[in-house]
Amino acid sequence: MGLVASMDLVPRVLQRDPWAIARLISRAESRSQECRDALAEVYRHAGGAHIVGITGVPGGGKSSLVARLAEYLRKDGRTVGILAIDPSSPFSGGAILGDRIRMGSLSDDAGVYARSMATRGEQGGLAPATLDAIDVLDAAGFAIILVETVGVGQDEVDIVQAAHTTVVVSPPGLGDDVQAIKAGLLENIHVVSKGDRADAQRTVTDLRTMLGIEVQLKGKEHRRTPVIATSSVTGEGIDLLARAIDEHRRGLDSDSGFQVRRRAMIERRVLKYAQEIVRDRLSRGSNGLLGQMIDRVTARQTHPYEVARSLVSAAYRNEPS
Amino acid sequence: MGLVASMDLVPRVLQRDPWAIARLISRAESRSQECRDALAEVYRHAGGAHIVGITGVPGGGKSSLVARLAEYLRKDGRTVGILAIDPSSPFSGGAILGDRIRMGSLSDDAGVYARSMATRGEQGGLAPATLDAIDVLDAAGFAIILVETVGVGQDEVDIVQAAHTTVVVSPPGLGDDVQAIKAGLLENIHVVSKGDRADAQRTVTDLRTMLGIEVQLKGKEHRRTPVIATSSVTGEGIDLLARAIDEHRRGLDSDSGFQVRRRAMIERRVLKYAQEIVRDRLSRGSNGLLGQMIDRVTARQTHPYEVARSLVSAAYRNEPS
Repeated sequence: MGLVASMDLVPRVLQRDPWAIARLISRAESRSQECRDALAEVYRHAGGAHIVGITGVPGGGKSSLVARLAEYLRKDGRTVGILAIDPSSPFSGGAILGDRIRMGSLSDDAGVYARSMATRGEQGGLAPATLDAIDVLDAAGFAIILVETVGVGQDEVDIVQAAHTTVVVSPPGLGDDVQAIKAGLLENIHVVSKGDRADAQRTVTDLRTMLGIEVQLKGKEHRRTPVIATSSVTGEGIDLLARAIDEHRRGLDSDSGFQVRRRAMIERRVLKYAQEIVRDRLSRGSNGLLGQMIDRVTARQTHPYEVARSLVSAAYRNEPS
Repeated sequence: MGLVASMDLVPRVLQRDPWAIARLISRAESRSQECRDALAEVYRHAGGAHIVGITGVPGGGKSSLVARLAEYLRKDGRTVGILAIDPSSPFSGGAILGDRIRMGSLSDDAGVYARSMATRGEQGGLAPATLDAIDVLDAAGFAIILVETVGVGQDEVDIVQAAHTTVVVSPPGLGDDVQAIKAGLLENIHVVSKGDRADAQRTVTDLRTMLGIEVQLKGKEHRRTPVIATSSVTGEGIDLLARAIDEHRRGLDSDSGFQVRRRAMIERRVLKYAQEIVRDRLSRGSNGLLGQMIDRVTARQTHPYEVARSLVSAAYRNEPS
C-alpha cells in the first residue's frame, strides 16, 4: 500500500474497487493537486448515476432513512453509493463504511459504498470535494448515489443542487423550521420521518396543504410535490419513496428547467474551483507580505478588502503564464 | 432621498443615524463596488464594540434570547446593535427594525438597532457582507453588537469567529445535536434556553458534565465554559448571561490565544474578499467563453476544474494592472 499515483487508481475505481474509491475520495478531500488529472478522467466516465440529495434538520431521521432506502434499493438489485455530509450523521467522523450497526444488512455488501465527507471547517473545501466524490462514485458505476446533508449553508445548498432529485426530510411536528430548511432549496419530494409517531399524519396533512397552496400560486404546470410518511422502525413508506424518486427521475428528461439549473450548477462549480485556485496561489505565494498587511489591518490603517486587492494583483502580475 | 454617495453616508453613520446605517449595510449586502471606500473609512473608526455571536440550532430560542438580552443591556444604559443571519429569525426577511411584537420595548428605542442579513443564496456573499455590517454598527458606536446565526455552514462559522465572545444556545433535551452545532466553533458561554421547562436543569447538568470532561482533557489552564439556564418567558438567567459576557470580554486582554485567532480571522477575511474579486472579474469578463466551456463540461469533454484554470489565467493575463 505505498503511494499509488492517483491516475493509476482510476481503472480500479471504474471496476468499483472500494480501496481505490476510498483513496481517491480522500485525495479529493485533501484538495491535492496530484489527483486533479485523475478526477478529470473520472469525470469523463461519470454521468450514469441517479444522484439523490437527502436533506433536513439535524436529528430529523435522515441517516436512518438513508440506511433503510439503501437496503430497499439493494433488494431491488440496484447498487447504491452513500455520501454523508451531516456532521451529526452516524456515517461521519471519517469512518469508511459508516456505523455498522445502523447500516445493518448493508455492511458486508459490495453493492453499497458509504462514506462521510470530513472537510467541514477547511475553507471552502466542502462543496468542491463532495462534488468530486459524487463523480468518483458515479464513475464507479453505482446506479443511485444518496447524498445526505443538513440543508443549511451555501455549501450544502450547492451540494443538494448537484442532485437530480432532492428529498427534504422533516420529523413530525416541525412547524416553521420546515420553511427555514427549505430556504434556497428546490425540493422534489417531501418525507415526514418517524411515521410511526402519532403526530406524523397531522404533519403530512399540513405539508400537503402548504405545498398545495404553492401549486396554486405557481400555476397548473407546477407539479405537486409528493409528501410521503416513512418509518425507519417499521419500514413503512420506503417503497413509496423509492417509487417517487424513480418517477421524478423519469420526468426530468422532458423538464427544460432542469437543463437550465444544471448549467447554472456547473457554472457555480467552475467559480468555486476558480476561487480555490486563487486562494491556493495567495496562500502559497505571499505569506510574508500577507503577515505584514495583517499588522496594518489590525492597526486599522487599511481594510481587509484593500489587502485582498493588492494580493490578487501582485500574484497575477508575476504569473509565468 | 436621492442617490447619496456611500462616502457621504459615513459621517452620518458615525453619528448613529439609523437611515444612513441601513443604507450602507444594504449596499454592503449587494456587494456594490461604490461602497468599498466608505466601508474602508468605516473600518478605520470601528474597533470599540464588543461583538457577541449567538448561535445554535433553529427553533432553539436564539431570537427571543437576543431580544431579552438587548432589553437588559438597554436598561443597563448600553447601546445595542443586532444582526440576525438565521433564516428562521423573526428579524429576517429584510425588516429593518425586526418583528416589533417580539422586540417589545425596544422597537422605538434609538439606542438599539436590529437588522437581518438577507444575502443567503448569493454566492459567497454572506460572510463578507455580515462582517462589513458588523463594522458599520461598530463604527456607529454601539457598545455591544449581538450577531445571531445558525452555527452550521462555513459562512456562519466565519461570522461567529469574528466575535469576541461566542454564546451557544441549546434548548433543553437536545442531546447529540449539541455536538453537531459545536463543530468548528469555539464556544465561550453555553446557554440552555427555555429554562422554565421541566427538563432544563437536567440539560444544564449534562452540559456541565460534558464541559467538565473537556477541561480535564485540555488541561488546567483551560477555563471551564459557564452553562447558564435562561428563560425568555420569566427573564430568569438573563442577568447572569450579561455578567458572563462582560467577564469573558475582560479576560480576553490577557488571552494570547485570542490575538492569534484574531489574525487568523483577518487572514480568512482577506482570502474571502480575494475570492470575491476574482469571481466578479470572471463573471464580468468571460460570459461568452464560460458558456461555450460549459457546453464542453456538459458533454463531459472537460472538467469544471480545467475550465476554472483557463478562465483565471485568461482573466489575469489581460490585466491592465
